[in-house]
This record gives sequence, structure tokens and C-alpha cells, in this order.
Amino acid sequence: MSRIVYVDGRYRPTTEAVVSVDDRAFTFGDGVYEVCEVAAGALIEETRHLDRLGRSLEALRIAWPIGREALRIVMREVVRRNRVRHGLVYLQISRGAARRDHGFPANAVRPTLVVAARSLDPAANAARAATGVAVITTPETRWARPDIKTLQLLPNVLAKQAAREAGAYEAWFVDRQGFVTEGASTNAWIVTAEGALVTRRADESILHGVTRAALIQVAAALGLRLIERPFAVLEAKTASEAFFSSATTIAMPVVSLDGAVIGDGRPGPVTLALRGAFREHAERS
Amino acid sequence: MSRIVYVDGRYRPTTEAVVSVDDRAFTFGDGVYEVCEVAAGALIEETRHLDRLGRSLEALRIAWPIGREALRIVMREVVRRNRVRHGLVYLQISRGAARRDHGFPANAVRPTLVVAARSLDPAANAARAATGVAVITTPETRWARPDIKTLQLLPNVLAKQAAREAGAYEAWFVDRQGFVTEGASTNAWIVTAEGALVTRRADESILHGVTRAALIQVAAALGLRLIERPFAVLEAKTASEAFFSSATTIAMPVVSLDGAVIGDGRPGPVTLALRGAFREHAERS
Repeated sequence: MSRIVYVDGRYRPTTEAVVSVDDRAFTFGDGVYEVCEVAAGALIEETRHLDRLGRSLEALRIAWPIGREALRIVMREVVRRNRVRHGLVYLQISRGAARRDHGFPANAVRPTLVVAARSLDPAANAARAATGVAVITTPETRWARPDIKTLQLLPNVLAKQAAREAGAYEAWFVDRQGFVTEGASTNAWIVTAEGALVTRRADESILHGVTRAALIQVAAALGLRLIERPFAVLEAKTASEAFFSSATTIAMPVVSLDGAVIGDGRPGPVTLALRGAFREHAERS
Repeated sequence: MSRIVYVDGRYRPTTEAVVSVDDRAFTFGDGVYEVCEVAAGALIEETRHLDRLGRSLEALRIAWPIGREALRIVMREVVRRNRVRHGLVYLQISRGAARRDHGFPANAVRPTLVVAARSLDPAANAARAATGVAVITTPETRWARPDIKTLQLLPNVLAKQAAREAGAYEAWFVDRQGFVTEGASTNAWIVTAEGALVTRRADESILHGVTRAALIQVAAALGLRLIERPFAVLEAKTASEAFFSSATTIAMPVVSLDGAVIGDGRPGPVTLALRGAFREHAERS
């Protein structure tokens, strides 16, 4: 992940960044995480990420391992020690290490905090955005609360792998009613023939994406109409544009869905306008 | 978990039993596990556990980290080093440690194998079985494939914790149709007024319990009628008997469900007959 990783109070070289086999993230997936973009050395939308982290922790009744302000300092120190200018900070908090037993540990254990960072090549993302990417669909198989950013990610792993093997970059989950919920690690959007943005309401069925929320503000600033409602696979295939959003991809144009070409098969103007305007609107800290 | 833990080829004291923060079990829950009972020093139903492990690994396309026969030797050595006469062996295999990325690692990584063991007090289980235990119900919230014994266990954690806080020992998941699927860490059974055993068919909605399969054989040997079908919560509340099964609880009598007394509020004769006969029928190795 990174060369230096913060694990429970210490900055360690990757080779020494270890946790107990009794850590509940390792045995139960009992933890939460965040991925925050780093651009030109600044953390992007950090406030929203930490707000969401707080909601995730509260939902699972896990305490903050260190205070929010201390965590901000650690994130910066990990970015600094790894010399990340463009990339991401990854942070994960689990309920801690305790003898394996499904219920919460009887004695208070200290939550495990891991913070890592690594560089990403902005040119690679820009190149993908210039051509657009392919997406496949896959049945929704996740647990009932994808809105909590937990480590229950095996369905996402399998979906992403299926996308790769199909020559695609992302997989969109489709619920029993035939509507797209979201991608394996991104939120899903389309643009209608009338130029309106459509994305699913942030209910319990999808992650409340930080970049999704930021893009909604950008859309308003650009005077774009936004409709929060589910859309079906066929509607996406016949949409003017489609794209997905996440901290590391921002708005990424989707040019095909299950092999069906979307629009004229090139990144659309609305998607590119959102992508272009994101930087000037996003919070930098 | 245990005093000596096998981690990737070495037997280590618990304090040194660690894995990388990049292990995919830690970051994605990308792994599988088994819990095998140890009784009087013998492994119970080991063949069925290893068969199921093989199916879990195949479903996730994870390779055996060591051969099956080598794993049998490691399990025995962990039991021996921890001096377990009565208790359990826990084994977990994850896809291995790799830079965090949802899709499978591009370069073959070695799956992570952890084997631990610990003693359990047989008297405690016997005491619980003598009085029976309380169970609550909770909505089914798990991912679509509980039949694969994966580390996607946060819903199970939350269900078990809800049971504890309600003064119960287990929680039974209830699907959208109102039928019990299974418990947070056990399979669910009832006994009808006619003395027939009812338990859900081992489809994709439940774990294919090793103890469940063994108890089906025991039931046949005892001349009991078995019906594999779903049962609703009300049917369970008004059943003659109810119980749940797992490697460490065998057949455990349930005497109340969501506060409703089942039967006469005491462990039933069919459950106790199954429990009593289990030992003589189970495979010991």
C-alpha cells in the first residue's frame, strides 16, 4: 500500500505494518474505512470523509481510536512520509483484537487504526477519462447496508474481478427490480436526452459517496438539473451519457454498458464539464 | 484465540501471530474459514469440514495454501501445542496480502493460512443444553451467498450482539417472506407436533452446516422423520421443540423465541435424543 503505514500509534515500514490475527477486521470484516484523494499535496473533501467516517463508526458502535483532529494530523503525516503529491490516503478502523467471538468483546478493546497512503499517476486517470471506460452489470449480492462504509467487500471484489475479466473497468450492481444501485467502488450516474443528471437517491441501498455529494454541488453551480431516482439498465444503455464517481476517479465517463455503446461511444460533454469543474469546487485542506 | 497459532508456515506465540495490514481478509473480508470441534482430543467430522473448505475456496477461486493432508497435520499440531482436549480448531484462509485493489491480485500471491485452537469447557455447554437457551429473530441482512463460509460476518456479529443484549444466546435471521434462514452462527431446526424434524433445505440461503449434515444422519439412525423446508417464525414459536446446531454447540435446545415459550419451556426429548446420539455417530479422526 504505502512505504510507511501508521498502525496503532506508530509509523512503520510496510514490512512491519502488521495486525493481530485476532483483529476483528481480519476474522469478521468488523470495521470501516475511508479513501480520501490527495491532489497537489492537499486532501480533497476531507471534512465530508471524516463526517462519513463518524457516521460509519456510530452505526457499528465503534469508538474513534483517536480524536478527529489527531486523525487529521496522522493522515497528513502519512501523506508526508510517503511523499504523496497525487494519490490517496486510506484509513481503516476495526473494532480491535479480541478472542474470536461474534458478539462485541466484553472488555473494552482499543479499536485498530491503520492509515496508509500511496501515489497515483494523474496521467493514467486522465487518459482513461479521455477515452471513457467500459462497465458491465452484475446482480446485487451485497448485504443490506451498503450505505455504511464497512469492510464487507467480498461481493465488490467479485464484481470488480468479473469486470476485469470482461475487459471492463467497473461493474454496476443491479437490484431485483432491474435498477442499478451503484458500482463495485463507485456511484453510478446517467445523463438524459434532456441533459438532466440522474443518480440514485442516497438511501440504505448505496454508499453516500463523498464525490457524489460534491458533484451534486458542482452540478448546481453549473446550472444542471439533477433528478435523484433509480434508473434501469436499459435506460442507462440508451442514455445520452453515463459516468461513475469516486474519490480517486472523480467523474469517469462510461462509454459502454454490457457491450452496448452509450451515446456516440465517447465521453459526453456534461460528464466532462462536471469533471473539469470538480477541482475548483472541491474542498481542499 | 490460542497460545500458539500457526501463521503462514510457522507456529508462533499469540503475541507474535500477526498478518500484514495488506492482507485481503483484513481489508476486504476476502477469505474463508472453518471451525472444527475437538472432543477428547479427536477432531470431529474433519472430513466434512475439509470438503466444505474445498468448496468455499473453489467458489472464491482461492488456492489451497498447503495440501489437504498437510493441513490435517497442522491442525493436529496446533491442537497438540495448545493442549486442547475439548474445544475447537479454527482455520482461516484469505487470498493473501497485496496492494489494496478490489480485483484479484495480478501477480499470484500466496494465500494466508491461520490455524488456531482453544479449549472450551464441556460442562458449560452441557449446562446450557440442560436448561435450553433463548433465541431472538432479526431481519436477514446478509449478502446473497451465506452458503459459502466466508469472512463476510458483520451482519452475524450485529445479530449475535443484539441477541446478547436481549438476554438471548442466538439470533435467527428471518427472510422477506417471514421464514427463518438460520442463526448468526448456527443452523435452525424445529420439531413438529408429530415429532418430525424440520430444517431449511441447504440451498444458497444458508450455510451447509457440517453438524446439520451429521445430525441428519443421526436422525435417520434414530428413525426420525426429516422434512427439509423453510419454517416461519410463528411455526417455530408454536412448535413442540426447537434447537440449533453448530460444531461447538451440537444440537442446542431452544426454549424461547422472541420471548415466546416453546413447548413446555424445557429441552425437548427429540432434541436431547439427537444430542445424545451425536457423539456415537460423528466421525472422529
